[in-house]
Amino acid sequence: MTIQWSWGIFNRMVEHAQERLDRIFAAIADPTRRAILRVLRDHPATITEIARPFPVSLNAISKHVMVLERAGLLHREIQGREHHCTIEPRPLREANQWLEHYRQFWEERLDALEVYVARKFKSSRKGTPHGKLQ
Amino acid sequence: MTIQWSWGIFNRMVEHAQERLDRIFAAIADPTRRAILRVLRDHPATITEIARPFPVSLNAISKHVMVLERAGLLHREIQGREHHCTIEPRPLREANQWLEHYRQFWEERLDALEVYVARKFKSSRKGTPHGKLQ
Repeated sequence: MTIQWSWGIFNRMVEHAQERLDRIFAAIADPTRRAILRVLRDHPATITEIARPFPVSLNAISKHVMVLERAGLLHREIQGREHHCTIEPRPLREANQWLEHYRQFWEERLDALEVYVARKFKSSRKGTPHGKLQ
Repeated sequence: MTIQWSWGIFNRMVEHAQERLDRIFAAIADPTRRAILRVLRDHPATITEIARPFPVSLNAISKHVMVLERAGLLHREIQGREHHCTIEPRPLREANQWLEHYRQFWEERLDALEVYVARKFKSSRKGTPHGKLQ
């Protein structure tokens, strides 16, 4: 009974982590939302300040801010009429942790490519009289 | 004239990189697609083999494979009736490069949190007679 209960909790935790990753990656799959994060990386800003450089409506920016907020990437503090936004980098660390599982894989590929290029370069040097590339 | 032309090419390159990031992040914003990449990380596989552990139709898996392929994350080789799939980790490296711009930011936050916890621990040790936490 205890095992079943723990297994249930474990499954729910895994599901929850998956749903969080879904929301994080979906949030950063948009160029405007990535640009908003870029602005907030430098300093906190109100929604009006965030919207200024973008050629879209304040309403559109507000929707993008909401998506970032739901993904946990943005913290909003309401002071009177102003909504002050700050970046929350923790979900980006979660995204990075997922990508890390593949780091070894892409690094191996690049190493293999480097070895291939180095070999090609070496054999082409042998083939030419003054070590010049053909 | 030359400057305008170069500026146009530069803008197109930036747009192209943005569109690629959109497709990459959207592709990995789905738990089934992340699970497919997890399978392919270990070994290449046909679509039938990929579909086996999933409780969804072969058609649904085929659509997920197509999304991964469009994002450049999967390479498909057709041999007769079989579609052999391998993972292409290069786009994951691109995603990682985008995230790296925020690494310093999340690491600073964590450092600040560690300092805070260490101080709290120290002050609570001072407050108790035998260095026990309250």
